[in-house]
Amino acid sequence: MELLFQYNWRVRDEWFDWCGEIPYDELIRERVGGVGGILKTLFHIVDVEWSWIRALKGELVLDPEFEDYKSLELVRKLSEQYRLDVKRFLDGWSSDQEHRIVTPPWNPEKSYVHGEVLRHVIAHEIHHIGQLSVWAKEVGRPVVSANFIGRGIL
Amino acid sequence: MELLFQYNWRVRDEWFDWCGEIPYDELIRERVGGVGGILKTLFHIVDVEWSWIRALKGELVLDPEFEDYKSLELVRKLSEQYRLDVKRFLDGWSSDQEHRIVTPPWNPEKSYVHGEVLRHVIAHEIHHIGQLSVWAKEVGRPVVSANFIGRGIL
Repeated sequence: MELLFQYNWRVRDEWFDWCGEIPYDELIRERVGGVGGILKTLFHIVDVEWSWIRALKGELVLDPEFEDYKSLELVRKLSEQYRLDVKRFLDGWSSDQEHRIVTPPWNPEKSYVHGEVLRHVIAHEIHHIGQLSVWAKEVGRPVVSANFIGRGIL
Repeated sequence: MELLFQYNWRVRDEWFDWCGEIPYDELIRERVGGVGGILKTLFHIVDVEWSWIRALKGELVLDPEFEDYKSLELVRKLSEQYRLDVKRFLDGWSSDQEHRIVTPPWNPEKSYVHGEVLRHVIAHEIHHIGQLSVWAKEVGRPVVSANFIGRGIL
């Protein structure tokens, strides 16, 4: 399962690089679908991944606001900072934790199992990156490859 | 890993249902990004999943043309037909096959390992479904949920 996280992180970093080549107006422009913009999508991916991992760890889930991170550098730094935490969690994870129960603090009447949440987080990022790829075409720049193969991850 | 295939199939079937509520013109309209259209995307997902599984099995890879499947019913039937084959393969798959080598017949100078290809197929579908979700907003209909959680898959 960790391999799909590694894939997501590589693709995400390539999108950060891609964003570095794009005027800020394009990153922040309101768009149809998803959470409504390129930089906001990257922020949302970072926020959601970390929030779920914090929930699985039973730790307090902070709720950063996009308004406080409206620059490429700030979102990228947040991604790097949170990733250390996520990576530590995954390094210590094993499949016998698949069926542990978690109740997300932002939705206390729901409960899920850990294996379900980890797959949710993986799919969540890939889905939103698919949205970026459509918007990137609108911007007129070649998109980042979504291929898992050929990255030497496995 | 099979759980993510199950997730993809459920989401795909919900998109087929969604397409049933949409005028044919919208399904076939040319759009920016991805493979360029809603029905064409679903066809592409079905084709690519099956082609890779056939390659992993060392079987002949047929190459269906979208031109021959330009109706919702035909693409849906193709999906159901191919899925039986994919499911049988996954049922017999175990992680000791992760590092088996495959050379795709459509690209004979490349080689990959089976575990890498299966993750590629999973990510490929989720990515394209993300693109559908943007186009669906253009159509003005509520999108299919991309959530893994809450589906009772695990």
